[in-house]
Amino acid sequence: MSSSKPDIYNDVDPFFNPRRVALVGASTDYRKLGNSILMNLLSSEIEIYPISKSSDRILGTKVYRSLSEIPNPVDLVIIAVSAKYCPDLMAEVKQAGASHAIVISGGFSETGPQGFELEQKLVIAAKKAGVRIVGPNCVGISNSRLFNGTFTMMPERGNIALLSQSGALGGMMIYTTRAKRIGISKFASIGNAADIGFVDILEYFRNDPRTKVIAIYIEGVENGKKLFESLRRASREKPIVILKGGRSEAGGRATQSHTGSLAGETRVFDGMVKQAGCVSAPTLDSLIEICKLFDYQPLPKGRNIGIISNTGGAGVLATDAASSLGLAIPSLESETTRELRQVLSPMASIGNPIDVVASGGRREYRVTTELLLSDPNVDMLLVICAVPTFAGMTQTEHAAGMLEGVRSVESDKPVVGVWLSGDVGKPGKDLLEMNRIPCYDDPFLASLCMSKITEYAYLLQRHAHS
Amino acid sequence: MSSSKPDIYNDVDPFFNPRRVALVGASTDYRKLGNSILMNLLSSEIEIYPISKSSDRILGTKVYRSLSEIPNPVDLVIIAVSAKYCPDLMAEVKQAGASHAIVISGGFSETGPQGFELEQKLVIAAKKAGVRIVGPNCVGISNSRLFNGTFTMMPERGNIALLSQSGALGGMMIYTTRAKRIGISKFASIGNAADIGFVDILEYFRNDPRTKVIAIYIEGVENGKKLFESLRRASREKPIVILKGGRSEAGGRATQSHTGSLAGETRVFDGMVKQAGCVSAPTLDSLIEICKLFDYQPLPKGRNIGIISNTGGAGVLATDAASSLGLAIPSLESETTRELRQVLSPMASIGNPIDVVASGGRREYRVTTELLLSDPNVDMLLVICAVPTFAGMTQTEHAAGMLEGVRSVESDKPVVGVWLSGDVGKPGKDLLEMNRIPCYDDPFLASLCMSKITEYAYLLQRHAHS
Repeated sequence: MSSSKPDIYNDVDPFFNPRRVALVGASTDYRKLGNSILMNLLSSEIEIYPISKSSDRILGTKVYRSLSEIPNPVDLVIIAVSAKYCPDLMAEVKQAGASHAIVISGGFSETGPQGFELEQKLVIAAKKAGVRIVGPNCVGISNSRLFNGTFTMMPERGNIALLSQSGALGGMMIYTTRAKRIGISKFASIGNAADIGFVDILEYFRNDPRTKVIAIYIEGVENGKKLFESLRRASREKPIVILKGGRSEAGGRATQSHTGSLAGETRVFDGMVKQAGCVSAPTLDSLIEICKLFDYQPLPKGRNIGIISNTGGAGVLATDAASSLGLAIPSLESETTRELRQVLSPMASIGNPIDVVASGGRREYRVTTELLLSDPNVDMLLVICAVPTFAGMTQTEHAAGMLEGVRSVESDKPVVGVWLSGDVGKPGKDLLEMNRIPCYDDPFLASLCMSKITEYAYLLQRHAHS
Repeated sequence: MSSSKPDIYNDVDPFFNPRRVALVGASTDYRKLGNSILMNLLSSEIEIYPISKSSDRILGTKVYRSLSEIPNPVDLVIIAVSAKYCPDLMAEVKQAGASHAIVISGGFSETGPQGFELEQKLVIAAKKAGVRIVGPNCVGISNSRLFNGTFTMMPERGNIALLSQSGALGGMMIYTTRAKRIGISKFASIGNAADIGFVDILEYFRNDPRTKVIAIYIEGVENGKKLFESLRRASREKPIVILKGGRSEAGGRATQSHTGSLAGETRVFDGMVKQAGCVSAPTLDSLIEICKLFDYQPLPKGRNIGIISNTGGAGVLATDAASSLGLAIPSLESETTRELRQVLSPMASIGNPIDVVASGGRREYRVTTELLLSDPNVDMLLVICAVPTFAGMTQTEHAAGMLEGVRSVESDKPVVGVWLSGDVGKPGKDLLEMNRIPCYDDPFLASLCMSKITEYAYLLQRHAHS
């Protein structure tokens, strides 16, 4: 099956889809990474072989003294021992049957000239042994459907691949997506990227059938042209959302002491991202939220947004946000307006944005959603519920009404919710999200996400015609 | 005590500090506003007199047939009956002892020419009787320390006053602040503002000793000059944060069908806000978060921000955000740098932003916080915790370390936290917030709030010199 995939896919695949994994540096000490990694590995269904010189059993599992003692050939070795031992381990990795190793250990080029030399030695040893490596100085690799080869939390299963130049920030994104119940397909932290690099992982994610959207945190790259080509190829197949660190002069200086990257000219980078057909996220929070919308909803055919609310104020704010972000607020078809007038309260505003007013409940949300999704002037729909409780109605009923409306039309237009009111709005919000309608706490964030998927839809069209 | 306050304070105060309240339109029907309002009123300690023609007892409380039957004089009457009955009620309100009425009922000028006439009748009747009114068509008034005269939720006690031209959006803010445990002093929804207007409430909040910060949602006003003067006076005494609806052309059209306001030229409005010494909030979410920072922390003396993180990436993002928002990232004193070098890991970055790296725990957070707050080059501090778990440490320990650092210095510099990692970060975040250190989920939002209090500090200085 994977034979039709490019070489790099097959080169990288064992990092994500191993059947037997050895961990060199397994530990009983909860302060050691080798303890966290083993805990994570043992929660998967694949075969795990911990290696340690100091214990016979760890976490109830048999421990081997060295890679050579493992009875079966392994296809991936994870290494979490002192840096100085790593180069010599490469030959053993190969002897144990593996051509792939994740080197979690730090203490390489990130520490200075001595570490740089050690990293060179590691690379040479790996090449000589015929072993591809991810790392060193990384958080590791996880595949939410198979195993967690990191010292951070396992993500929820889903369709968004995470590629972060900052391992910790990548780990943070896993925690955040778990709290928000957003699913991740695969996570890669490549650390110093001594062998497998950013572009290799990107190419892998492009070819990965489980990945629908790619989220990237990047500070800088050595080979901009190669990255550009890779982004351009990948963005034609799936949306790529990029958050760039080091945009400011001060931030750029900081990236040098962080990943050692030259952040480069921001405007040049922004231009490259757009030319490559990718969209950029302005903040960490929005990076995840934009990816969620790409994952859950189809792309719009144009930039016309329909807005429904039960209070004028929130409709006004969404209209302001959408307009400022390049979306258009179209007039509705006269037939839509006529039908809305029949259904809604005389107090309602039936222009766009539509205000069904506080008395508008499940029925009004259903019918208005239906009518707007059926209107040829509307390319996408943003539905707000801002009145917390009214006359015994709850925001869950409004959400149910909206959902009924979306289902009865079966349109291919993207739809998002903005369920305001804190904890009181949560059940309604959860109902929508469980049905893959992204639901936001703020009209601006919802509009921002809509504007980003619209931008991508246009970039794709341009691609198609170029 | 209040005799030294301006007349408008005394005119408005009984709306917020009544001792005996009558409710005309109390109802047993949970779909009626008169039911929700009564429930809210009964949860306060003040005397409540429900009025209804159709029940003897509601919610266990004795009901009176009319205002004239109440045995004691009341000082506030809340009205939630059909619009048509409202004008005639004004004389009865006065006879019952009250010079103040909140008219919740809708069906006035917001509905068209007939409603407009009815509103005129209401105003004339009120004036004739000597009754000041809030409303009609409003959510009501609440004072978190005394009573809830609305049909929405009671806010938590605190120091932020909410003034919203959109009642529903105001109600939404109450729900949101409750979920975020942010305290509110008073809430006012003035609806059609037939008598008591925006500026009256603003003047009241300016003079209210319980209010430290004023949050405003506004779409447009009739008398811009009067508003400007009032904002200018108030902003010299306490910070005012304004969210303007109807910024875009399409949004401006929508405000006309909502509050009937002409949104006006946005740039003119923005200039006015700044001239008046107020700060503007770009989004609904940030409106509340900016107010929280004003409430919890002192103002900075300058625009230099110190940034601490345990992962380079998050420090870079905060640096980018702070720079883009007009804050400066200063170099540290050489003594600070020297001491940091002694305390932190050799892997740490000791420039600004500081990266204490993943191994930095409670001690490193404490000492780094202390040193930066003591550095004369630093006017404010942003502390990030992004590594979710490491070597048995939790983000709560990092928060405790930061808190210890803040306490040991006793500085008057503002401090915020950015505790990333979703649910895992929540205990640390809660610890900081309980100690009145605002804690955010995103470095950008934290930087935005810092930039806004800095802007206000500069505006105040300008005021002082003008």
